[in-house]
Amino acid sequence: MTETDVDCENLIADMTTKARSAAHILARATDDHKSAALKYAASAVRIDTPKILAANALDMAAGVASHLSDALLDRLKLDEKRIAAMAEAMDQVAILEDPVGQIIDTRTQPNGLTMRRVRIPVGVIGIIYESRPNVTADAAALALRSGNAVILRGGSEAVHSNRAIHHAMVTGVTQAGLPSESVQLVPTQDRMAVGAMLRAQGAIDMIIPRGGKSLVARVQDEARVPVLAHLDGLCHTYVHSQADPEMAQEIIVNAKMRRTGICGATETLLIDQDYAAPAKLVAALIDAGCEVRADDMVMELDSRTVSAQEEDWDTEYLDSVISVRMVAGLEDAMGHIARHGSHHTDAIITGDEKIAERFLAEVDSAIVMHNASTQYADGGEFGLGAEIGIATGRLHARGPVALEGLTTYKWLVLGQGQTRP
Amino acid sequence: MTETDVDCENLIADMTTKARSAAHILARATDDHKSAALKYAASAVRIDTPKILAANALDMAAGVASHLSDALLDRLKLDEKRIAAMAEAMDQVAILEDPVGQIIDTRTQPNGLTMRRVRIPVGVIGIIYESRPNVTADAAALALRSGNAVILRGGSEAVHSNRAIHHAMVTGVTQAGLPSESVQLVPTQDRMAVGAMLRAQGAIDMIIPRGGKSLVARVQDEARVPVLAHLDGLCHTYVHSQADPEMAQEIIVNAKMRRTGICGATETLLIDQDYAAPAKLVAALIDAGCEVRADDMVMELDSRTVSAQEEDWDTEYLDSVISVRMVAGLEDAMGHIARHGSHHTDAIITGDEKIAERFLAEVDSAIVMHNASTQYADGGEFGLGAEIGIATGRLHARGPVALEGLTTYKWLVLGQGQTRP
Repeated sequence: MTETDVDCENLIADMTTKARSAAHILARATDDHKSAALKYAASAVRIDTPKILAANALDMAAGVASHLSDALLDRLKLDEKRIAAMAEAMDQVAILEDPVGQIIDTRTQPNGLTMRRVRIPVGVIGIIYESRPNVTADAAALALRSGNAVILRGGSEAVHSNRAIHHAMVTGVTQAGLPSESVQLVPTQDRMAVGAMLRAQGAIDMIIPRGGKSLVARVQDEARVPVLAHLDGLCHTYVHSQADPEMAQEIIVNAKMRRTGICGATETLLIDQDYAAPAKLVAALIDAGCEVRADDMVMELDSRTVSAQEEDWDTEYLDSVISVRMVAGLEDAMGHIARHGSHHTDAIITGDEKIAERFLAEVDSAIVMHNASTQYADGGEFGLGAEIGIATGRLHARGPVALEGLTTYKWLVLGQGQTRP
Repeated sequence: MTETDVDCENLIADMTTKARSAAHILARATDDHKSAALKYAASAVRIDTPKILAANALDMAAGVASHLSDALLDRLKLDEKRIAAMAEAMDQVAILEDPVGQIIDTRTQPNGLTMRRVRIPVGVIGIIYESRPNVTADAAALALRSGNAVILRGGSEAVHSNRAIHHAMVTGVTQAGLPSESVQLVPTQDRMAVGAMLRAQGAIDMIIPRGGKSLVARVQDEARVPVLAHLDGLCHTYVHSQADPEMAQEIIVNAKMRRTGICGATETLLIDQDYAAPAKLVAALIDAGCEVRADDMVMELDSRTVSAQEEDWDTEYLDSVISVRMVAGLEDAMGHIARHGSHHTDAIITGDEKIAERFLAEVDSAIVMHNASTQYADGGEFGLGAEIGIATGRLHARGPVALEGLTTYKWLVLGQGQTRP
């Protein structure tokens, strides 16, 4: 290991030790106490708005100087409205139901022993993210609300903004009488610090990466700590032969075009060859401003389509582009999704309940939908209050991850002197 | 990569592809169908008893020739009784309640969308284990019962026994009309095959290591696939000042001596300095045949104790040995457990409910007990029917892992044409 490696190891070891002490206190903090901390933090963010804006101006200037793309600059930018929304989101998290202490199940054995499963916080959560500075507030709020200590490592573009937001959060947390080490921000932008977090087995209990493919891939590849990852959202919508054409058209345009940059946007449309009005569907997308990359059969429906290349079926556009394929039926559609999908969200539009049931049962995605827009793939829309991401892995938590996904459980065994025969 | 590396990668890639196809069928198999497969398998194990015994004799002869320890030979050895018990265990798993298809929660939003969380199998599970050949049957039975395809990699000492048991299981599974690839046994003992399993991200959904510390450590270190690990069971029992002496004595002797080789055996006894009858407790252990390694204060209680070394506090003896320390109260006891424990099972004996509540809340272990023997740390005793291990990690499943721990969930979203505003 190089010297910076060792420095970063030491830094993270020190931070995780402090985080563990804070986590012990947070784990036993009452619902009201944790809620109050978030309200204080929201209020500190509001009061610190001028400081946060000034810090953000430094990041924006550096971003312009280093020729960041307009899209990245837009993610980086904070204004009064965005800061107000950040504070409001914290207030919303403050009033969510606290999962900690919930009894998941209780069973009493014939020998009189009672076994009880109780929800507890995960412990110390590491969050590694990129340019959006609001993650500093959003992610930390959810982690804290569920009684976890959090170690944040934001992107270098947002370093000043992150520090200012973190400062406000710590103000709120300490005002509520909780340890300042409940929310820590890694002070260095050295990439070795990320490596040290990923190797901090036993010291960090869970890492949540929030960012682009390359970040998530690095985290998954290097991590020795369990990772709750959100990979691509390569979402499909399959319009079955028994779909109502009006419903299909409305859903498809919404699923693709409402907001093209979110992970729940439909990226591939599969049209059943027996569907009544395929040309109208394609025309509606094009009329809404969407580029349609089509297979040969779909190209014949509308001269404004372009030819899809093989890689299009594996591309998450996050843009006003969709790939469209004609399929021979349910099996063909599910086969396409199995080959090209990302286990995020996939939908079927059909009036046939039996077909819908098969699709819902057999498509192996975190979220499967019937007669609804894939843009509903969002913790808020699921009634979970907020989300820290959509998990596309299979273990621990799947789909929208909210407070419950940031908890685990322990077993209490309550006896009266029992010994095992 | 070397040539064997590539060969092993190809082998595992081929096995996981077949396992995935089998998993798709298993995921939709009915409760009765999976149950029948296990009953057929149990019956095939009974019928094949002579073949399994002959195969085991080869392993035992090789084991003797290579000077395996008596303990290892005992783990390896099968006889008619052990084989009958293996088949009986499969029949027991066959009648457990199937968690697949259970609806975890249902929520209908104001816009009419219904979100439903449904339990599904994890998918493809890899099990890497050591000398006990019965794991081939036990682990595979639990994985199959919960609708998973399983890839087994047993220890080289048990290679013939494992093949014979695996053969019987496949016979049962195919008799029930389920794919033979539902249960696969890695055909090579090349260690590279384990490496290939650990790197099979996306192809194997979860790895369960069952074996000693070095196996589990290797798996945790190399795995790119999520691991459900069972580390040491360095269990503590704390006898508080308000413990009933008779209860304390009975529990301690049971917790240590009932079976010393299981992970739920107490390895360290912490005696409160204000506890009424510490000498009797120590004497009871020694009288029961236990070696007591004690700190200075405990050594004064009984001349038959020996002096504990620093490493004793971190040692899982799995033998008739216990380390005993006098502690200054609850905080001291919990501090010791935090420093030396393994997050497996820890118990308090006390008549003071408030003290018990604090211990149960603050000790960070998968299982915390009040007034009961730590030897109850067992899925069967928890009413879970059977267990694949005791998970000491924090995510997905914690404590005894039974069928539910081998499942995950998906979200169904049921709409009537909703589009997101």
